[in-house]
Amino acid sequence: MNAAPIVEPGSLYEPINYFLGIGGKRLRPILMLLSAQAAGGVNEDALDAAVAIELLHNFTLVHDDIMDHDHLRRGHATVHVKWDESVAILAGDGLIGLAYRLLMKVPNQHLTCVCRIFTEGVIEVCEGQALDKEFEERVDVSLSDYFSMIAKKTGRLITMATEIGAILGGGTEEEVKTLREYGSIIGTAFQIQDDLLDIMASEEVIGKTFGSDVMAGKKTYMMVKALELPDLTNRRRVFEILRAPQVTVEMLLEMRSIFTASDILKQTSAEIQNYFDRANQILTSFPYPERTEGLRSFSEMLLNRKF
Amino acid sequence: MNAAPIVEPGSLYEPINYFLGIGGKRLRPILMLLSAQAAGGVNEDALDAAVAIELLHNFTLVHDDIMDHDHLRRGHATVHVKWDESVAILAGDGLIGLAYRLLMKVPNQHLTCVCRIFTEGVIEVCEGQALDKEFEERVDVSLSDYFSMIAKKTGRLITMATEIGAILGGGTEEEVKTLREYGSIIGTAFQIQDDLLDIMASEEVIGKTFGSDVMAGKKTYMMVKALELPDLTNRRRVFEILRAPQVTVEMLLEMRSIFTASDILKQTSAEIQNYFDRANQILTSFPYPERTEGLRSFSEMLLNRKF
Repeated sequence: MNAAPIVEPGSLYEPINYFLGIGGKRLRPILMLLSAQAAGGVNEDALDAAVAIELLHNFTLVHDDIMDHDHLRRGHATVHVKWDESVAILAGDGLIGLAYRLLMKVPNQHLTCVCRIFTEGVIEVCEGQALDKEFEERVDVSLSDYFSMIAKKTGRLITMATEIGAILGGGTEEEVKTLREYGSIIGTAFQIQDDLLDIMASEEVIGKTFGSDVMAGKKTYMMVKALELPDLTNRRRVFEILRAPQVTVEMLLEMRSIFTASDILKQTSAEIQNYFDRANQILTSFPYPERTEGLRSFSEMLLNRKF
Repeated sequence: MNAAPIVEPGSLYEPINYFLGIGGKRLRPILMLLSAQAAGGVNEDALDAAVAIELLHNFTLVHDDIMDHDHLRRGHATVHVKWDESVAILAGDGLIGLAYRLLMKVPNQHLTCVCRIFTEGVIEVCEGQALDKEFEERVDVSLSDYFSMIAKKTGRLITMATEIGAILGGGTEEEVKTLREYGSIIGTAFQIQDDLLDIMASEEVIGKTFGSDVMAGKKTYMMVKALELPDLTNRRRVFEILRAPQVTVEMLLEMRSIFTASDILKQTSAEIQNYFDRANQILTSFPYPERTEGLRSFSEMLLNRKF
């Protein structure tokens, strides 16, 4: 993904190159390119914008890792751990600038429109992250609060990917709207899945700290459900663990048992499946099924992901 | 400067509104508007871009204050001190988004060009800040290194202000180039002045911590000169103070004495005056002297500033 061999100053570009080099699912650029294909066809313009959105996503990761005190990302040390917080702050800032630099290569006819969508996305992602942090301190987060938060924090970049892809692929107004909606549904499903994997997957598979959401007091889909459990004993225990000054591995495993015993895990999996079905349903409105084949296969892959 | 009464989420917008509300010289927007005037005339377009550049500048301050561990800014607590580091990181990120949102209001005919200049500015400012931090650990910084660093860290935003102002004012290619050059010279003068005020002004007047540059090991104009002093006794003492694990107020005063005794302060003042003279000289190439009157008065004011 390295756009250019920029090396100086090293304290800015080394951490940026390191972070881009440790991999990632490249979900957003892939969705952008597949959306361009669905709307008409992939071209050079979509490639620049696709890298731009991946850089923007990486900016959010580098800064979120500082805020969430996460030590591991994609199985490697996070930037603020490998270097320090100053370096990580600046690396994130630099990534925003580099993202816009690539975005500015979009041809003039689409530039204003694409740049506006991108910019509103930057703002909403910050709002989403702020809400996510605010929710850590609250125990009265409703499912509706949860969905608004993830629509900004996670959904916005994914919606942006499908919408910009559709525009650059030369889609009609209707197609752009449909693919935007598709992104919004996929984004929701993706975040609920992320919540699930954080507590279900092992550290080796996911490349992140196991149970980090519970430890940080994050209001995940399962946690919001658990805080509303009708069973008083379980609900009390969930509150106790959330309020514990130090969450132990035993507590994480206990939380997992509560999620399982109270059927929350099953409901969560069903909800994810439901969103993926809706996303596929939306694609049937496209006149040429072969154009949306890429999106279909990709979402199938996402549904079955283990990390 | 509050662009709109945005309030939610509070953890994002309260610190942003707070920081914009504690004042500032508004140097960059003023320079942009005066440059627009010099190039033809101020208009609505220039106003949006002027607020955008002030927001971008404030992003750099909020993040730099974290990196430099500064507690005071404009006589008030910095964001990471009043709230915490996470809030300050996010407030800075949000300011970048809000800056672009305003910039996107620039009319289409200028948008691509202005947006490109702005984006290159964002990247260079990050590079400048990275160099500034790298220089803290080095004692072999030359005057040429220093000038490259401040051209990015401080000069770039000021050059951007005068260049974008000139474009939006409807200036000719030649006028845009001249005003860009003017900004570059004013920016250099401004940073050397900032270096001087940090060690010379009292905390009450400057609204920042006295001698913070020396304490952080910053390679200011005076410090670079001091590290090259021919007098061995003074030069040794400068190295000692720079390497001290804890810089005391006595050491700061001693450093000030060395700067004074070795004529560095006098040379610094002369250098600043010299840059301001060159800046004014450049303006004489403009055909209508009344259009550049604003820039002249403003730079006169800057030259005599005490904070």
